[in-house]
Amino acid sequence: MKRKIYLNMHTLEEAQQIFQEQLAHSLTDEEEVDVRNACDRVTSRQVPARFSSPAFHGAAMDGLAVRAEETFGAADDSPITLSIASGQAIPINTGHPLPDDKNAVIMIEHVLLSEDEQQGVIRAPVYPWQNVRKTGEDIVATELLFPTHHTLSPADIGALLTAGCPHVWVRKKPRITIIPTGTELVQLSTADQEIPSGKTVESNSAVLAAMARKAGAEVKVSPLIADDYDNIKKHLLEAVRSDTDIVTINAGSSAGSADYAVQIIEELGDVLVHGVTIMPGKPTILGIIDNKPVVGIPGYPVSAIISFEQFVVPVLKKMQGMDQDAPPQVTATLAKNIPSRGGIEEFRRMITGRIDDHFVTVPVKKGAGAITTVTRANSILRIPGSSEGENKNSQVQIELLRPLPQIEKTLLCTGSHDLTLDLIRDFLKKSNPAYPLASTHVGSLGGIMAVKEHMTHIAGSHLLDPQSGEYNTSYLHRYLGDQDVTLITLVFRQQGFMVLPGNPKKIETVADLTREDVIFINRQSGSGTRVLLDYELDKAGLDADEITGYDNEEYTHMAVAVSVLSGKSDAGLGILAAARALKLDFVPVTEERYDLIIPTRFLELPMIKQLLDIINRADFQKQVEAMGGYSTRETGRVS
Amino acid sequence: MKRKIYLNMHTLEEAQQIFQEQLAHSLTDEEEVDVRNACDRVTSRQVPARFSSPAFHGAAMDGLAVRAEETFGAADDSPITLSIASGQAIPINTGHPLPDDKNAVIMIEHVLLSEDEQQGVIRAPVYPWQNVRKTGEDIVATELLFPTHHTLSPADIGALLTAGCPHVWVRKKPRITIIPTGTELVQLSTADQEIPSGKTVESNSAVLAAMARKAGAEVKVSPLIADDYDNIKKHLLEAVRSDTDIVTINAGSSAGSADYAVQIIEELGDVLVHGVTIMPGKPTILGIIDNKPVVGIPGYPVSAIISFEQFVVPVLKKMQGMDQDAPPQVTATLAKNIPSRGGIEEFRRMITGRIDDHFVTVPVKKGAGAITTVTRANSILRIPGSSEGENKNSQVQIELLRPLPQIEKTLLCTGSHDLTLDLIRDFLKKSNPAYPLASTHVGSLGGIMAVKEHMTHIAGSHLLDPQSGEYNTSYLHRYLGDQDVTLITLVFRQQGFMVLPGNPKKIETVADLTREDVIFINRQSGSGTRVLLDYELDKAGLDADEITGYDNEEYTHMAVAVSVLSGKSDAGLGILAAARALKLDFVPVTEERYDLIIPTRFLELPMIKQLLDIINRADFQKQVEAMGGYSTRETGRVS
Repeated sequence: MKRKIYLNMHTLEEAQQIFQEQLAHSLTDEEEVDVRNACDRVTSRQVPARFSSPAFHGAAMDGLAVRAEETFGAADDSPITLSIASGQAIPINTGHPLPDDKNAVIMIEHVLLSEDEQQGVIRAPVYPWQNVRKTGEDIVATELLFPTHHTLSPADIGALLTAGCPHVWVRKKPRITIIPTGTELVQLSTADQEIPSGKTVESNSAVLAAMARKAGAEVKVSPLIADDYDNIKKHLLEAVRSDTDIVTINAGSSAGSADYAVQIIEELGDVLVHGVTIMPGKPTILGIIDNKPVVGIPGYPVSAIISFEQFVVPVLKKMQGMDQDAPPQVTATLAKNIPSRGGIEEFRRMITGRIDDHFVTVPVKKGAGAITTVTRANSILRIPGSSEGENKNSQVQIELLRPLPQIEKTLLCTGSHDLTLDLIRDFLKKSNPAYPLASTHVGSLGGIMAVKEHMTHIAGSHLLDPQSGEYNTSYLHRYLGDQDVTLITLVFRQQGFMVLPGNPKKIETVADLTREDVIFINRQSGSGTRVLLDYELDKAGLDADEITGYDNEEYTHMAVAVSVLSGKSDAGLGILAAARALKLDFVPVTEERYDLIIPTRFLELPMIKQLLDIINRADFQKQVEAMGGYSTRETGRVS
Repeated sequence: MKRKIYLNMHTLEEAQQIFQEQLAHSLTDEEEVDVRNACDRVTSRQVPARFSSPAFHGAAMDGLAVRAEETFGAADDSPITLSIASGQAIPINTGHPLPDDKNAVIMIEHVLLSEDEQQGVIRAPVYPWQNVRKTGEDIVATELLFPTHHTLSPADIGALLTAGCPHVWVRKKPRITIIPTGTELVQLSTADQEIPSGKTVESNSAVLAAMARKAGAEVKVSPLIADDYDNIKKHLLEAVRSDTDIVTINAGSSAGSADYAVQIIEELGDVLVHGVTIMPGKPTILGIIDNKPVVGIPGYPVSAIISFEQFVVPVLKKMQGMDQDAPPQVTATLAKNIPSRGGIEEFRRMITGRIDDHFVTVPVKKGAGAITTVTRANSILRIPGSSEGENKNSQVQIELLRPLPQIEKTLLCTGSHDLTLDLIRDFLKKSNPAYPLASTHVGSLGGIMAVKEHMTHIAGSHLLDPQSGEYNTSYLHRYLGDQDVTLITLVFRQQGFMVLPGNPKKIETVADLTREDVIFINRQSGSGTRVLLDYELDKAGLDADEITGYDNEEYTHMAVAVSVLSGKSDAGLGILAAARALKLDFVPVTEERYDLIIPTRFLELPMIKQLLDIINRADFQKQVEAMGGYSTRETGRVS
């Protein structure tokens, strides 16, 4: 445990510039490779053509090779007969060389052949060199085919072969050595492996290796090593002195007591930057040892990805002479306020989709430690250090992590969470991989608000009206006014208390929640489950103040289940499927209806049509019921 | 030689639909792979999490683990002293498990430690679970991590490992067998290989193999086989019966006399489509043999690429459960009229760039046989069968072959051609791989018109004013009026007659061009070289009508040189460098100035600044002079 002291703190831009300057002449060596294996490689020299192409005048069509002058005058009323027998006209196929004394080709479709194919009648002339591919029409020997630092495409391979180049000089793939460190980490090797208590699976090295390979590098991942000063120093030095172009040392770059990387780099070489004003990714170290770049990568998975993306990937590309492509961007309407700390550039992971004629972008939860904040996102919002955040409804520039067409087909879903949404997500991708369902969880009321504000395609909701005992309808009237929405029943589901196996605290009714020995875990206000709890408390004449933990809120059924499982609380209200998933006991309280709210104008969108098709399918409904606690008796009903 | 008869002609859309329907259930088998090698693979099942992450409540910060309740009341005026010695507060590092009896972490930055580190003073409380990463905050065991048909990214690998999944079920890579055929073809193997007269290098198989690999396939390329019915049949059958998922047979799909593919597929299986109304790519065959898709790919390189892209790549992706990404598009202003045949969907290769605030797109030359029409292009214009072409200045949708940021940095150059432009292209890419120079050749006057119409960044020009003997200036006044352009001298260069080695026709002056035994090859009107010839003829009192071949036009110096080399003509006017490149003799006629015309508003564009920097560099000028016939004595001068 140590105070975080950054030796040499910089902004992202400064840090990138300092690093790039140190590496100004860091191109890898060149090597000559077989052109057939050169796709995506980068030329290290200009490439001139060795052959012209075509190498000869050749027929561009199947037909008769002739001297054009002998066809002049041919017309409908004055056909000309050409003798094939005498060699006046010579049958020729596309691509074949034109006989020396010929200078044009008549398309076979324009020739009336005699039965014995010894004569052909034409009714139109050809001009000299018509239907002839002339020498050098495509490529002229000696001309520049590709400049230096050109990334070769499949078609380029064809041009190289055609021009007589079976080999091409390219930059060698840069070699990177990735050293994972951390006494608290273990390698995951088999699917039945149990992780010792207090340990975490080492995953960053595999992520960074895949990123490096995508950037064209050859990757060596060292075995995981423990946080020991001399041990790390030994491995780092070995790596730097090996056949490698860049070394990253993972974790150990924050300033905890086990974090030696910065001291070791300082001892062995130079620390150029320690600490970058970005979040996640702040504890990055940029150094040089023996003229080789060494990067200390933060330990949190999201920090590691952003640090690697911002500092290592550009170096790998630069070493190959590759273009540093900026990610594609779109302008989108921000669906929520996002406060941010001034003085730090924040990389917020977002879900972006198209609603009507504009893009909408929704933040996923924060947390540099949560890898799913990256895997669930399809885009990034960068909030500069000069800003203290962005306001809801403002237009922001979003960097895309996926191709634009996929963003455009993303189905935005928000509101209350239900496990059947995951099943829909799976069925949707199975039916068409182009339709990703991206859901965020804001509770039923939050979902209705998102519909109202045109920020979602679909909202999941299970809001009980305490007066009528009806679900959702009265809320739609109250909040959506005359907006035309369609309410479709997804499922009926059991809500009940999730408790530890064996129900050690004997919780049977809402009244038990007020007992002094019971700690409750609640859902956030605005969620249907919270409304349901309040309704049940009201029915029983109980006061929320009497419940310990009523103010502790979680946002999903699974988070509530986890709270119970981990012993933080004794009971939470939630669905049977969540309890089953974590092998908790379940005390049923009531059955409720869970609906999908869809603005009617979206019903014709192909991905919505697909979704509606899915929920009406027997195989889908069967899988829903198999999860437990669900009834699909009215699934797909429009109310 | 045979009439082209298409057995079963369809539009692109029909053909794709017919093929996809036949292959509706054509997913490859699944296999379980190491997650670390699963990047870009596609899940074949939904993937649930096996572990929760974090697996335990852990410190989110370096600091002191405490019970939050024991910090309540701490404030500036009422600090609380916590005992580390007694275990009331326990030093903890980020990521480490929270001791069982603690429920919060105080950041070390907020603690005043005693010298012996046995006590810590705090001036603010923490609330329960503050700075704690709770169990399952990232991933909850059993939850859906990824749906079926999800393409795995590097971050996804991290999520899988974190969730306890060292292996993952994915679709097998589809296997494709590519059979090149053609008696007129030879394989290129070594760099000193001479190609027998009349033969052409086989290049399509390598191009298609690279395209297939980029689509995730495993590729087998068969040896090149001759056009022999039984031989092709034997190889095709062998391929279909081998461990392969799809077979393509290259060339042999048009209807020339050597084209057996369609008959063989008909004999062995079913021809679903023969002939697609696209250009290039019309003679495509789509067939099925033994339930395996067999595609007959046209022989011309551009036809082959488009046919493969439209029919084979979608099948390869579909077999893996991959999304069929549509290419990104932009709207651009068309720089030229493009007539097109109705009834046929045309794929025109284009160069697209950004001029001021809009995109401009310029067609490269046609010719399905010219691979460079693809390699020089960065985009595609699809002209539907219902259209007879597009008009200049109309707004058209352009499909991009390169990432948008690269299109935006493309430097458009047009006008007269000079070989130093290739050198600039090379130096530009060397200095920054992000700056591609894309040049089209329309003659000096065409270049000035493109400047006038805001269709280019740069125009090359060497237009002699016969009155003043000056270059370019008077033309700028005449055609560009008050448009603010900057004229920068690139080079002085020798113009002269290119003739066969030894100058067999003894051509020494323009007067010799009028001799009966001399065939001339001219440049197109509007080109500076044409203006120069007319000027020289005028000076000598000669009439253009007296020159045989005056009406034969080529668009570049190199094309003129090729015409002479191939014996089609005896002499052409051009630059020394072009003559040297093809080892022709050169008879000097005059020296001329070649300038770059750049709208002044573009001088601040980073790629233009880079270009101007390059032409002023000594190493650049040295290479220019080394090409022969060039003087750089005024290179870079602004006139």
